Amino acid sequence: MSQQNIYDNDDFYSNFKENREDKINFNDIIEAPIITGMMPDLSGKKVLDIGCGMGQHAKQYAGMGASSVLGIDISDKMLAFAKENNSAGNITYRKLAFEQLEKLEGRFDVITSSLAFDYVQDFAGLMKKIYDLLDRGGKLVYSMSHPISTAYDGVYDRYTRTESGERLYANLHNYNVEGLRRIKWVVDGYELYHRKVSTLINDMIKAGFVIEECQEAEVSKEMIEKYPDKFGGIMHHPDFIFFRCRK
Amino acid sequence: MSQQNIYDNDDFYSNFKENREDKINFNDIIEAPIITGMMPDLSGKKVLDIGCGMGQHAKQYAGMGASSVLGIDISDKMLAFAKENNSAGNITYRKLAFEQLEKLEGRFDVITSSLAFDYVQDFAGLMKKIYDLLDRGGKLVYSMSHPISTAYDGVYDRYTRTESGERLYANLHNYNVEGLRRIKWVVDGYELYHRKVSTLINDMIKAGFVIEECQEAEVSKEMIEKYPDKFGGIMHHPDFIFFRCRK
Repeated sequence: MSQQNIYDNDDFYSNFKENREDKINFNDIIEAPIITGMMPDLSGKKVLDIGCGMGQHAKQYAGMGASSVLGIDISDKMLAFAKENNSAGNITYRKLAFEQLEKLEGRFDVITSSLAFDYVQDFAGLMKKIYDLLDRGGKLVYSMSHPISTAYDGVYDRYTRTESGERLYANLHNYNVEGLRRIKWVVDGYELYHRKVSTLINDMIKAGFVIEECQEAEVSKEMIEKYPDKFGGIMHHPDFIFFRCRK
Repeated sequence: MSQQNIYDNDDFYSNFKENREDKINFNDIIEAPIITGMMPDLSGKKVLDIGCGMGQHAKQYAGMGASSVLGIDISDKMLAFAKENNSAGNITYRKLAFEQLEKLEGRFDVITSSLAFDYVQDFAGLMKKIYDLLDRGGKLVYSMSHPISTAYDGVYDRYTRTESGERLYANLHNYNVEGLRRIKWVVDGYELYHRKVSTLINDMIKAGFVIEECQEAEVSKEMIEKYPDKFGGIMHHPDFIFFRCRK
């Protein structure tokens, strides 16, 4: 998959936007607090947000003292939303694909990405490009779907459930088989790449990075009890994985 | 679980030994080739093997040029077997538990362990003790049961199978719930500790280590087709995880 741009698909975009506008969503409840907690001090830092989407994170990082935030994304719809809703004097939004990172001029202190690296075919190559774009001592902080999650290939359900729908356990199939997954998520034919956790780790290291921290998605017991339909599976099956590493 | 010594349980020992003597076993086919491939050059190196068991690995490392190999284990039966079957002039076997590592004098160039860290309650503390026992630039190379494997708590079967027994997918339950697992493996009441992959990574880093490589158990398609009863689940559910890190 080269430069997949499913976010400009009308059905996908409107469903995706609706999910995000729900106040109880995985991104606001799980992803954002964890990645924010892993961020270094952003005061005076030049930040690049790869796959910035609707710009919520870019806006947040701009407010955390970054001197500048450049948000790049491939989707016109996402960028239009970001410009309209998450602008600030120190934020720039620009249309650019993962595969075009070498077009960026200058270096960054912090490069970040939230749940976008799933779409990258050449993860090892991406790590090398990001390494080159960082100043010495610079940090990469990112989240992506957890390998236990990306393993899902649609052959079996994600979970085995009781008749009333309670998730008993996750059905883990072909974790050791890496590569393209075409599944149903929001729309049919959603594409992402599955990689084992060892591949993520080794690709960061081979690019030159020193790994500083890893986190796996968790949510409080209170949230699970309050919203079992949304969060009931996370004890079996962490949805996201997070890494911070330094050049 | 403090200093669990299930290997001196007669039933466990005889069953365990029988498994290992089977030429087609997980240790010889999967674990040994991967960990050996991750070893640095051992020429002239002082090696410590923690939980050396029957001494196969110690014997191997001694043959790879190590100046000395110290194998430690808590089980008298294992140490007796090791001394009888896997001795060499540069190998010493000694009875010592994980919790007594500080009793060792001197430093090591390489510290290794094969499938023994599952039994350690305080993994963070173990990493710190090992760090202290290494010379600067020294390496820790170890294998343990994969977090996807140690998550197993016996509530559901490990796999969902066809009526003829073929493993369709792994049943992953409570991955995000760390801690003691008491399960049936070889004997009832086998105890080990489940930790998430992020905990392993963060505990190594907090001890001071730089992670150099990670591997997850794999086996060739030929072996899976030839021995589906033994290896048929590994595509869904890697049994072991391996790390190499340096001080």
